[in-house]
Amino acid sequence: MSGTIYGIGLGPGDPDLMSVKTHRLLTNAKHVAFFRKAGRKGQARSIVDGMIPEDAVEFAMEYPVTTEIPLTDPRYNEILSGFYEEVTSHLIDLAKSGEDVVVLCEGDPFFYGSFMHIYTRVKDHVPTEVVPAITGMSGAWTATGAPITWGDDVLTVLMGTLDEDKLVSHIAATDALVIMKIGTNFEKVIRALKAGGKFDDAYLVQFATMAKQTCMKLSEVTEKVTPYFSIIVVHGQGRRP
Amino acid sequence: MSGTIYGIGLGPGDPDLMSVKTHRLLTNAKHVAFFRKAGRKGQARSIVDGMIPEDAVEFAMEYPVTTEIPLTDPRYNEILSGFYEEVTSHLIDLAKSGEDVVVLCEGDPFFYGSFMHIYTRVKDHVPTEVVPAITGMSGAWTATGAPITWGDDVLTVLMGTLDEDKLVSHIAATDALVIMKIGTNFEKVIRALKAGGKFDDAYLVQFATMAKQTCMKLSEVTEKVTPYFSIIVVHGQGRRP
Ligand SMILES: C[S@@+](CC[C@H](N)C(=O)[O-])C[C@H]1O[C@@H](n2cnc3c(N)ncnc32)[C@H](O)[C@@H]1O
Ligand SMILES: C[S@@+](CC[C@H](N)C(=O)[O-])C[C@H]1O[C@@H](n2cnc3c(N)ncnc32)[C@H](O)[C@@H]1O
Repeated sequence: MSGTIYGIGLGPGDPDLMSVKTHRLLTNAKHVAFFRKAGRKGQARSIVDGMIPEDAVEFAMEYPVTTEIPLTDPRYNEILSGFYEEVTSHLIDLAKSGEDVVVLCEGDPFFYGSFMHIYTRVKDHVPTEVVPAITGMSGAWTATGAPITWGDDVLTVLMGTLDEDKLVSHIAATDALVIMKIGTNFEKVIRALKAGGKFDDAYLVQFATMAKQTCMKLSEVTEKVTPYFSIIVVHGQGRRP
Repeated sequence: MSGTIYGIGLGPGDPDLMSVKTHRLLTNAKHVAFFRKAGRKGQARSIVDGMIPEDAVEFAMEYPVTTEIPLTDPRYNEILSGFYEEVTSHLIDLAKSGEDVVVLCEGDPFFYGSFMHIYTRVKDHVPTEVVPAITGMSGAWTATGAPITWGDDVLTVLMGTLDEDKLVSHIAATDALVIMKIGTNFEKVIRALKAGGKFDDAYLVQFATMAKQTCMKLSEVTEKVTPYFSIIVVHGQGRRP
């Protein structure tokens, strides 16, 4: 008689790009959980504005403020794990009391998503289901108006948070390329693209599929930072009849 | 007054995973075009069974039979280009006469999709729009029940048609891995996974999100061939609090 925890992918931002399944789960939801930073509305919650029932119970999972603790400090992981334990125990209680809960996930839940931290903690306790979705990168390469991969092109997906050396070697070794989590790593990523020989062919897509979407050649960008919702795309040039 | 050619991604197979936008374009379609092999129904056409209006005009684009011509023979490319020219000129005529046409695409159109060969030939002549979709690989990693990437994992997507050496070096250099277009390259891909140190962690997903979906550890697979709709997945093991 347990309820189910659904990790539902919302896609890259445009509500029209949600799956029929996600749309149905949303419009029938009784409990809606989502991550957000303290004091923010949260991107996932914004995407579903006006779509969830008015009487749905919302559960905002607010990230603890960790800006003063470096990622490498053991306390960083401790604080985050404590937070995940706390929110998941609430979700498990809800499910055990018979309620279904949808957890909102930007993009595809299993692709660098924060839902994964919930999933691994709840899946052995209550029924759990993951609904895949269109990734931010599919939204981004569609925005460039050109196919990302052809024939047997190799595609590599890199995070801007990687070391510069590692970025360079992977950038040089691939045909097609996607870089995510850029933000404050923008200048490092640009140096790595130059060293890896792909800077001139790179595009920067901000807010893919959202109202404020922009798409530019990276070489024409003048800013030194780029928003959280930014993806760099380099198209493959493989075999084509 | 021209019509538009829509390349609509159908997602990995389960109709419930189509986007709301694709669903709407399908259920209102007047002209529906799709690729298929001679004598087959076609996977894309099968996915939309019962969804397109009864009076929609269907345009089956049947691949020319090239099985006796090796990929490296110049005639192979000539025959395929001739075929693409022929079908796209029909699509352009339809659009110019004011009709909208939806072209069915398995998965995401710009991700190793055959729609790209139409897109590049029509986009400068008539209005064209691409609707992104859930990829086969998202369907596949969701089927394994575990996240594909965490933290700053590197994800590499490889085609089974690549040379064995190239497969091995990319397999060894990545954290998370997806291999597509396996089919008759299955034994080569398995050798490459062993040489690259990822065989024991690999999963084989057949027909992801479709009724006959299967998911197995690759090391437990006994067959020597695998169907066209097969994807190998190796999960990343990155940072996780
Ligand atoms: C934590 S990851 C989440 C990825 C998400 N699960 C997906 O499937 O795309 C966050 C990163 O995804 C990228 N991203 C996701 N959606 C995006 C969009 N609509 N436009 C631009 N970037 C996006 C950005 O690079 C961002 O830093
Ligand atoms: C020409 S590519 C098309 C990819 C497609 N555009 C996408 O976005 O996934 C064909 C390959 O995609 C993979 N594929 C696509 N959908 C799949 C599914 N539902 N299950 C298993 N493999 C799939 C297989 O490896 C197949 O050989």
